[in-house]
Amino acid sequence: MSNKKTVYVVGLGPGGQEFLTAQAQSALQKAQVLCGYTVYLDLVRPYYPDKETYTTGMTRELDRCRWALETAQSGKTVALVCSGDAGVYGMASPLLELAEDYPEVTVEVVPGLTAALSGGAVLGAPLAHDFCVISLSDRLTSWAVIEKRLAGVAAGDFCVALYNPSSKGRPDYLARAVKILLDNGKKPETVCGIVRNIGREGQTHRVLTLAELETTTVDMFTTVFIGNAETKKLCGRMVTPRGYRG
Amino acid sequence: MSNKKTVYVVGLGPGGQEFLTAQAQSALQKAQVLCGYTVYLDLVRPYYPDKETYTTGMTRELDRCRWALETAQSGKTVALVCSGDAGVYGMASPLLELAEDYPEVTVEVVPGLTAALSGGAVLGAPLAHDFCVISLSDRLTSWAVIEKRLAGVAAGDFCVALYNPSSKGRPDYLARAVKILLDNGKKPETVCGIVRNIGREGQTHRVLTLAELETTTVDMFTTVFIGNAETKKLCGRMVTPRGYRG
Repeated sequence: MSNKKTVYVVGLGPGGQEFLTAQAQSALQKAQVLCGYTVYLDLVRPYYPDKETYTTGMTRELDRCRWALETAQSGKTVALVCSGDAGVYGMASPLLELAEDYPEVTVEVVPGLTAALSGGAVLGAPLAHDFCVISLSDRLTSWAVIEKRLAGVAAGDFCVALYNPSSKGRPDYLARAVKILLDNGKKPETVCGIVRNIGREGQTHRVLTLAELETTTVDMFTTVFIGNAETKKLCGRMVTPRGYRG
Repeated sequence: MSNKKTVYVVGLGPGGQEFLTAQAQSALQKAQVLCGYTVYLDLVRPYYPDKETYTTGMTRELDRCRWALETAQSGKTVALVCSGDAGVYGMASPLLELAEDYPEVTVEVVPGLTAALSGGAVLGAPLAHDFCVISLSDRLTSWAVIEKRLAGVAAGDFCVALYNPSSKGRPDYLARAVKILLDNGKKPETVCGIVRNIGREGQTHRVLTLAELETTTVDMFTTVFIGNAETKKLCGRMVTPRGYRG
């Protein structure tokens, strides 16, 4: 019998079972306790109806991590679940920060499909060249930093995936972000895409221009993609060339 | 019987079966023919020993795509495999470009774990905040563009994943890239990480500073991670804070 005390921090991808890796499934199976933000835990609970669970609300991230570490310390194997990837804006980071205080506990990071990849696949191939992922949420990052980063990626003509493009408290953030991109070199006709409810019921997507994106209303369930100067709309899909045909 | 003519372009992740999503497994099973670069096809061939296969060398990307589309057009379901994600520097982009000429064929993009995610999980949580993915290969992109992008991400204090950091013809590209990052605002003590042979036999990793990275030799099987100003080394792992504790 192993006496290893483990917390798996598991990226679920967009949610459906079909997006789980075999490694993630195995971690969920090995865990005695499943823990996470209520909405994400509800995605996996049906498949493991007999497991102990611990859920917390959206802003209780550190509480969730401490609970997971304490529970592993007491001898139970824990899976802390995140949507998307475990690392990208996920729980691996705060968990590893707090894990310093639990030297007996092993943290194993299990990667998953972040929305840049799962949403990108819905649109076509928007991120087929150098790209950036930026969150527009200013809950943990100042808007000044976000603005500086948007200006930098426009100047470098990166493809971009924007996470958290909107919420109730900041309905105009996407329009502000688009304006910064336009002011720093992205052209109004740049091909863009939006995907809502990636991999879930009611998934929708649309390919549009950056000028159109500036006046488009999106919600917090949407991921936004902005092309580089070469990105094209082909048969309704958003495709950034790799350059093989150039 | 469906008369849909389909090419699945499938991201395998780093290679091992444990990193495949259920969706990718299903696409490989449904396909009558598997097609891809020899090295990647060898990763999946053992699991589907009875399927027809078509392999081509490393620089025959357009040939592979055309073959896949022709074969689907003739009525066989094809899976075109890529390492990592199907979209990120993958085959989804050239396939969708060429697919314009095959209106009867449906292209379905199946995402997979790109090295930024699978390698990030090995190191800890290096990309837990806004990040960029840049390829240092100048086969399809001019070095001037790569240099401009490196300067931009340094100025914006992004976390960075560098793909193709080296090859036989360009052993000094990583050192040149690090110099550009240093010249544009990244500090020499920035926490960095390298992962070699992600998810394969002989996987190794190391956490080091940007100054140390400048004089480190890596090969084409290595992915390089560069932190932002907040990134820390904690218990041997590379962790970029989300900011919850700030």
